Amino acid sequence: MDLAQTPPTLEAIYTPIQAELALVETRLRALAGQADPAMKPLVEYIASGGGKRVRPAVTILASRFHPNDGSLAVTMGAAVELLHAASLVHDDSVDNASVRRGLATVSSLWGDGVAVLLGDYLFATSAVLVCETGNIRVVRRFADTIREIATGELMESFGAFQTTHTMEEYAHRISLKTGSLFRTAAECGAILSGAPEPVVQALVEYGNALGMAFQIVDDILDFEGTEAELGKPAGHDLLQGTLTLPAMLLLERYPQDNPVVKLFQREDMEANRERAIDMVRNSEIIYDSYAVARRYLDTAAAAISALPDTAERRSLLDLLDYAGERRV
Amino acid sequence: MDLAQTPPTLEAIYTPIQAELALVETRLRALAGQADPAMKPLVEYIASGGGKRVRPAVTILASRFHPNDGSLAVTMGAAVELLHAASLVHDDSVDNASVRRGLATVSSLWGDGVAVLLGDYLFATSAVLVCETGNIRVVRRFADTIREIATGELMESFGAFQTTHTMEEYAHRISLKTGSLFRTAAECGAILSGAPEPVVQALVEYGNALGMAFQIVDDILDFEGTEAELGKPAGHDLLQGTLTLPAMLLLERYPQDNPVVKLFQREDMEANRERAIDMVRNSEIIYDSYAVARRYLDTAAAAISALPDTAERRSLLDLLDYAGERRV
Repeated sequence: MDLAQTPPTLEAIYTPIQAELALVETRLRALAGQADPAMKPLVEYIASGGGKRVRPAVTILASRFHPNDGSLAVTMGAAVELLHAASLVHDDSVDNASVRRGLATVSSLWGDGVAVLLGDYLFATSAVLVCETGNIRVVRRFADTIREIATGELMESFGAFQTTHTMEEYAHRISLKTGSLFRTAAECGAILSGAPEPVVQALVEYGNALGMAFQIVDDILDFEGTEAELGKPAGHDLLQGTLTLPAMLLLERYPQDNPVVKLFQREDMEANRERAIDMVRNSEIIYDSYAVARRYLDTAAAAISALPDTAERRSLLDLLDYAGERRV
Repeated sequence: MDLAQTPPTLEAIYTPIQAELALVETRLRALAGQADPAMKPLVEYIASGGGKRVRPAVTILASRFHPNDGSLAVTMGAAVELLHAASLVHDDSVDNASVRRGLATVSSLWGDGVAVLLGDYLFATSAVLVCETGNIRVVRRFADTIREIATGELMESFGAFQTTHTMEEYAHRISLKTGSLFRTAAECGAILSGAPEPVVQALVEYGNALGMAFQIVDDILDFEGTEAELGKPAGHDLLQGTLTLPAMLLLERYPQDNPVVKLFQREDMEANRERAIDMVRNSEIIYDSYAVARRYLDTAAAAISALPDTAERRSLLDLLDYAGERRV
């Protein structure tokens, strides 16, 4: 990854799979039409909400290392994106978030009760889509993923406002919360293509490492990003009591008079949030956090180094650069 | 059904399947051991929470009309009970309920956020269990059921405090909310036993009709039951704005000065709750509501009339009597 170069755009990365991603959109929009009339407006709201579609792109790219007609990867891509949407609906309800991707959240519009039930509906609908693939290994992996995401989120919730997390605990938590779905996106694309096991395992490793880096960059941007980029003030994670990599490095390096310690004791939360952001920005912590993300991105690149050098592999590699340098 | 007779006890009904129900308990308790340490206390709390285990009993009884070793029905029974537990955890959070089966609810103990995530974890774990059966038709039906339950609950939520529901809407709503899982319990037990399609379909119809009757009796007990029986004051549904069969009959028969109309306009809620309960209890409404439940129970009995006259079929028939006459 060359920091001097402009990072690749998602549009360029998605070039080899444009047609399939358009079919994923069609599948997602069709779900509203198939829903019970009571659900229709809610499902439409979710299906039209946008998003970068990184996870279905990974599924479709991962399905291109073995000859197949591509239809199962489209179904799986739609399922993966819908599972992601479902987990965001529940997350926003748990976090009392009011805005997501520039749109009002379901919980802020219709209340937490509706958000809980709509999230359930979307989780179940994503599972129904996966069942359409007819592949029980893929369905099983998908159900495991929902379980892992919920476990990671619960760890975050129970560990909130505690300063004692280890780096291993952080890595375990984000591998459940975010790595799991990226892994599943890649793994299931490969399985459904009929690729041999070594190819599947290469893509498992790629997906997991990409997901780890994706979450670490998210956690860095929560300190480094501007309010315009984030759509919310920086330091949101700190206010939720979530200890992320930059905050852990800040704790480690400034054991005296630390703003994270004070904020987590609910002391002058606003002032300590600002001080923590300033200290992270004006230290090596951003740089060192990116170095951790970059190690995962290197792992991901190495994992697919033995795959044939095709347009799809180049897109998977470019996606790593994008993940490391994205601002939103 | 002979009203003069003592209704059969669940213990008697479960006699032919005692060993399998004990294995279901073992499976449920083992889930805590397999859970991530962060989840263990929560899963233990759920697994030890008791309950009547009616749904797994239906699954196991339904698996006994074709020779098989019974192991898949045990797995399915555990999954069905866990799905039920998951939906109760989310329900209690949506309804702000503080007590369930005499125990504090997850949302009241750990907050709504934890209830949302634990419910997700339990839904996903139940799906993982179903995947163990290796039967994609069963997995698909299971995912559809989660979707149907969420749809039914959302209809209830969106229709709250409205007096304009039709009987058809009520029937549709409770078939989604409650009928669906009873149907799935019976259907999947039959499918996993390898029974021929006519047997499966007979048990589909049995399960759905039993579920409808079960919910209608629940709705009647919310008017007729004592606080000791219900574990909460009668009229809970009314206070939630949920229009059930007895309330619909009350609206239909007393169009003038109706307490349900006033309560749903949030006028003197406590006084109107009491008045609605008195009016339902001191009219033909209880009797007529039981007559509706009984029609479903008769449908369920007729559905399995062509099955061989075994101990299991007698238990399924006795379960109908139990469902019609239970007080809790």
